[in-house]
Amino acid sequence: MSKEGAKNWYIVDGYLPYKGRVDEEIFEGHEAIMILNCHDEDAEIFMDIYYEDREPDENIKIASPAKRVKCIRMDHPDEIGGIRLDRQLQYSLRFRSNIEVIIQYGRMDIAQSNLAYIGMMGYSE
Amino acid sequence: MSKEGAKNWYIVDGYLPYKGRVDEEIFEGHEAIMILNCHDEDAEIFMDIYYEDREPDENIKIASPAKRVKCIRMDHPDEIGGIRLDRQLQYSLRFRSNIEVIIQYGRMDIAQSNLAYIGMMGYSE
Amino acid sequence: MSKEGAKNWYIVDGYLPYKGRVDEEIFEGHEAIMILNCHDEDAEIFMDIYYEDREPDENIKIASPAKRVKCIRMDHPDEIGGIRLDRQLQYSLRFRSNIEVIIQYGRMDIAQSNLAYIGMMGYSE
Amino acid sequence: MSKEGAKNWYIVDGYLPYKGRVDEEIFEGHEAIMILNCHDEDAEIFMDIYYEDREPDENIKIASPAKRVKCIRMDHPDEIGGIRLDRQLQYSLRFRSNIEVIIQYGRMDIAQSNLAYIGMMGYSE
Repeated sequence: MSKEGAKNWYIVDGYLPYKGRVDEEIFEGHEAIMILNCHDEDAEIFMDIYYEDREPDENIKIASPAKRVKCIRMDHPDEIGGIRLDRQLQYSLRFRSNIEVIIQYGRMDIAQSNLAYIGMMGYSE
Repeated sequence: MSKEGAKNWYIVDGYLPYKGRVDEEIFEGHEAIMILNCHDEDAEIFMDIYYEDREPDENIKIASPAKRVKCIRMDHPDEIGGIRLDRQLQYSLRFRSNIEVIIQYGRMDIAQSNLAYIGMMGYSE
Repeated sequence: MSKEGAKNWYIVDGYLPYKGRVDEEIFEGHEAIMILNCHDEDAEIFMDIYYEDREPDENIKIASPAKRVKCIRMDHPDEIGGIRLDRQLQYSLRFRSNIEVIIQYGRMDIAQSNLAYIGMMGYSE
Repeated sequence: MSKEGAKNWYIVDGYLPYKGRVDEEIFEGHEAIMILNCHDEDAEIFMDIYYEDREPDENIKIASPAKRVKCIRMDHPDEIGGIRLDRQLQYSLRFRSNIEVIIQYGRMDIAQSNLAYIGMMGYSE
């Protein structure tokens, strides 16, 4: 019997890359969190953001609807509870969900004109 | 005793990249799913495709022969039950197999002239 | 108590990339398998190579010495039991070890002049 | 109940890339280890570095403060117990922590003018 994911997820290497000159370029450097909810009910998720030298921002509410994939752009404050993350600043993410989900991380970097990627599954419990 | 994989696999960040000008370039931007079946019997796998804003496509049948690696190109409708995925559209994948397999994901992106990769193991249960 | 790894490992997306013009370039497109053995005794590992359309090559013996990291270049037949893998051909790997180890995969691709990477932990049991 | 990570972590493919001409370039090729500690108490971590052909350097002490993400640059000897790693040399890492943490690895490579990334979760127990 498949549980369809886990309730606790961690992404350690969060780092908003250089954005690029958006007017002139097609691509914009960014990070995204993708959440897959295979259940018939919506997931209620709390996200915590950890930093190197100050207290974490905790209990940011994220909705992940039933039978959908949900994308969160880490450079869009309205998608992460109004938090405005600085670029080129280390942070980590923790997610606590009331039902099992699967969470993946992606970074698109265009700092040196050609894009580069990091993509990975989060660590789950 | 090795189980030789798992029966349930998830890939969250599916995203068909820019294809490229196929006539002029050697490489073509694409995504692929690789399935390893180490057993002496064929695996029967059902794949579900989840989207951001509509119901999933479910129960797409995939054959994964005994003692072989099977590759599925996500931009080839005939390999994924006739589904034609749009490029630059977020989706996620779920796989349910009758026997244990191992599933890996790869994306090759040539949107900015030089290729970039994402590669990772799926999340398994 | 840490087990220091696992006895069974799988890499699904093996694919020897374009080699490059070795005389003219510093870098050579390649794949490598890295095996970490933290134990006080040597590990004896058997590697199987799976293909898309023919029987696997099985029981290739790999030595992984105590308290060392061992690197295997997949384009060096003398390091993989004399097998000569074709470039641009899909294959998968299975490893069975008598003691616990940790196995990681890396690909360096220079097919489009700038290098690109895939790196990941194997799937373990 | 979430354990908030694991006590034992492994990174196999350590390899300090080409540094670049630091005076002329914005980016510097490097590797980093990111450690997330979600607990209310500091973690005390011991790091071991394994090599291909000599005895490991063991019991390098790393502090990971409570509710913070900690970054370690592998090319900064003062952050890894005074060890000076050679560039272009294979090594592996093992971490033993007194409390659960999550450890991720990142490499930024600029050897061929455009950057490339490897990013992944460590193997945990």
